[in-house]
Amino acid sequence: MYSCSLERISDKIKTFSKFGDAGHGGITRYSLSPEAHMAREEFVRRMEAIGAKIECDDVACMFATLEGSDPNAKRIVMASHCDSVKNGGNYDGIEGVITAMEVLETVVAENIPHKHPLTAMIWTNEEGSLYPPAMMVSGIVCYDYLPDYLKPNFMYDKMMASKPMDKSEFANFGEALAATKFKGPKENRLSPDRYCAMFETHLEQGPILEDNGNEVGAVQQVMGMFNYRVKFHGFTAHAGTFPMAKRHDALHAAADFICKMHERYDAMNSELVAQGDYEFVFTTGEIYVHPCIHTCIPDEAEFSLDVRHPKQEVLDKCMAVLQEMAKEEYQQCTCGVEEQWKRDPVPFDSRLIGFVEEAMEEMGCKWQRILSGAGHDAQFCAYVIPTTMIFSRTKDGLSHCEPEHVSDEDCTTAATATLNAVLKCDASPEF
Amino acid sequence: MYSCSLERISDKIKTFSKFGDAGHGGITRYSLSPEAHMAREEFVRRMEAIGAKIECDDVACMFATLEGSDPNAKRIVMASHCDSVKNGGNYDGIEGVITAMEVLETVVAENIPHKHPLTAMIWTNEEGSLYPPAMMVSGIVCYDYLPDYLKPNFMYDKMMASKPMDKSEFANFGEALAATKFKGPKENRLSPDRYCAMFETHLEQGPILEDNGNEVGAVQQVMGMFNYRVKFHGFTAHAGTFPMAKRHDALHAAADFICKMHERYDAMNSELVAQGDYEFVFTTGEIYVHPCIHTCIPDEAEFSLDVRHPKQEVLDKCMAVLQEMAKEEYQQCTCGVEEQWKRDPVPFDSRLIGFVEEAMEEMGCKWQRILSGAGHDAQFCAYVIPTTMIFSRTKDGLSHCEPEHVSDEDCTTAATATLNAVLKCDASPEF
Repeated sequence: MYSCSLERISDKIKTFSKFGDAGHGGITRYSLSPEAHMAREEFVRRMEAIGAKIECDDVACMFATLEGSDPNAKRIVMASHCDSVKNGGNYDGIEGVITAMEVLETVVAENIPHKHPLTAMIWTNEEGSLYPPAMMVSGIVCYDYLPDYLKPNFMYDKMMASKPMDKSEFANFGEALAATKFKGPKENRLSPDRYCAMFETHLEQGPILEDNGNEVGAVQQVMGMFNYRVKFHGFTAHAGTFPMAKRHDALHAAADFICKMHERYDAMNSELVAQGDYEFVFTTGEIYVHPCIHTCIPDEAEFSLDVRHPKQEVLDKCMAVLQEMAKEEYQQCTCGVEEQWKRDPVPFDSRLIGFVEEAMEEMGCKWQRILSGAGHDAQFCAYVIPTTMIFSRTKDGLSHCEPEHVSDEDCTTAATATLNAVLKCDASPEF
Repeated sequence: MYSCSLERISDKIKTFSKFGDAGHGGITRYSLSPEAHMAREEFVRRMEAIGAKIECDDVACMFATLEGSDPNAKRIVMASHCDSVKNGGNYDGIEGVITAMEVLETVVAENIPHKHPLTAMIWTNEEGSLYPPAMMVSGIVCYDYLPDYLKPNFMYDKMMASKPMDKSEFANFGEALAATKFKGPKENRLSPDRYCAMFETHLEQGPILEDNGNEVGAVQQVMGMFNYRVKFHGFTAHAGTFPMAKRHDALHAAADFICKMHERYDAMNSELVAQGDYEFVFTTGEIYVHPCIHTCIPDEAEFSLDVRHPKQEVLDKCMAVLQEMAKEEYQQCTCGVEEQWKRDPVPFDSRLIGFVEEAMEEMGCKWQRILSGAGHDAQFCAYVIPTTMIFSRTKDGLSHCEPEHVSDEDCTTAATATLNAVLKCDASPEF
């Protein structure tokens, strides 16, 4: 068993939290922004200090590699991102980059023998906060391996034209990319020719580890999901002149649907949990009505529905219930549903999960199996090379906000678990 | 019994529908816009043709007066507005102006004797579509007579600074007013010194007359109302990572509240109707959530609530139920309510209502007593001089939209009712 250094981890967290400091304990660090470039320069400085070789690919992903003892062995990579959402926290993404750097620093400091080259990697533009969509660059890099239904979302030329959602000196992602110095040849992209395994360490972004008193989680898979728009069509009339019984109020219809959907879905979840399965999570995050005037009955209402579960058959059942519910009338309004996008459940590599679980068990830390409800670059990577993730305990389950927090100790536990899992992978004849 | 002319009414409807023709059967004719000026010029042309005297006041209200036989009698005025909402119809407001012109034209054509001077009047900026608020100018003119709680909404200087909500060549209402040629001295304003009664003819804007097979309605009063914001406070978290039981979903809370409020209020309405009273109408026209992102649980949700009824005690009961409901938690979210504005029920003058009802009865038309759920300049006027309204049947109850329609025949019936009610008022020793 090797251990990472609490002191070095603390120092890195403190240092990287300065790049984009938003003044309330968190950061705004858009991909390819001056703040993100400061973080990349710090990455280079620290990795060159331990003798790692720095490379970039054509979409500004960065790689710092320590050579291994076997010249024929493929690289094992630890990767995450250094960009944040607007007014995000000091952990989402950067914790995985800090972990990767810490693992290489520990390998060098402790002179740990290893067969495979070990690589710390930064993915470009995971959040997609300035240039949508999220996971843009892992989508581009993994494009050939993605399921067909996902490909239209990550076409290279379309992504290059992605326009900024907030202040930027560049007209689109392509221009921001053209201006960065952190660029190299396309051959440097992550690929199965040169890489044999990928680990991503990340905060959980939920309250499950904390509620169960666990420090780290061995992630089994990324949940599948579907995202729909649910629309209601009634008709508008004057708030003061139209009798109640004659109204076709689209907002009342939407409210009625949301309440009935919670009843149906809650009952399905009770059954799932009684059978020992995970519950699915469902969220109505956006709502719009038309004309949205306080003296008019709304004729249109529309909300978003996001449903996630590890099993496709559960998602299929949720979708069937939605379709069935949409056939009915609500408050004299018609209902329609429209798919926006979906993703299949993405299971991680069982051998890599095994290494992570063994490492956690041997460390004697408090750990559990867990799922990822959020999306990560690892989920696209998993179509290309064996991949898995390690989660760390998240204070109050909060993320994508400035109070987002992981203790230095929990970051160190997650880094130590990553280090030992990587070393098990390195030692395995299968890799 | 005198009768107005279907032919003249049809001609006026056709003519005025051209001023601001929006291309789908309706108009966009903002107050003091070039289109509104065309309508005002047509008013002048027609009224001068019958020998009426044209006057304007300092806020661009226009008056066309036929002298009466008694030099000491005060004027009886028929008034409405010639401005519309964006993409409004050919009747809201202008029907009352057309009626007023038609009454004067009939009086001249038939040489009908009358003691009081008879005035046709155009109110400026009733809709407030370009320069809010609605009923701005009747609020300014009737200011001294308004209840104190309404006064802050109609302070002269504040109203002059009202900024345009859509394209305009003027920076505010004051500048538009300064530029119009339809202006005169402040002394010309409607006042109890010179005016003894006011009649406003308007389409119903609801389906009640049509549903009951009636052509016209004798309006008894303008309903009182209150307008609230209902707010829910939960907390936001990631749609994929947060277990259902731990959520404090503000949109789910708002939906839950809306459904429960409908249940409570519907039950109250059933009781009212069983007692032979009117139902109250309630509308949730606007809704907003924060952060309104499909992958985030909303932490804030807020909707508008508009409640209207002719009796203050019913409104008080509705408000008490709202306050009581707000004390509870909804889906683990707190609830708060905040008053935006309110208006007391405004009863119309019983003598004028009597003249209208007698006239309708004598005409042998199909009529009923009715309430106004919408606001009108007449409701401010009612604080100043005896006032009432006459409603005409509205196709499908639609208004504030291009399909808004009243048949030429129903317009003529309403005009004839107005004429005969005005003549009864003229003949009454009480006026």
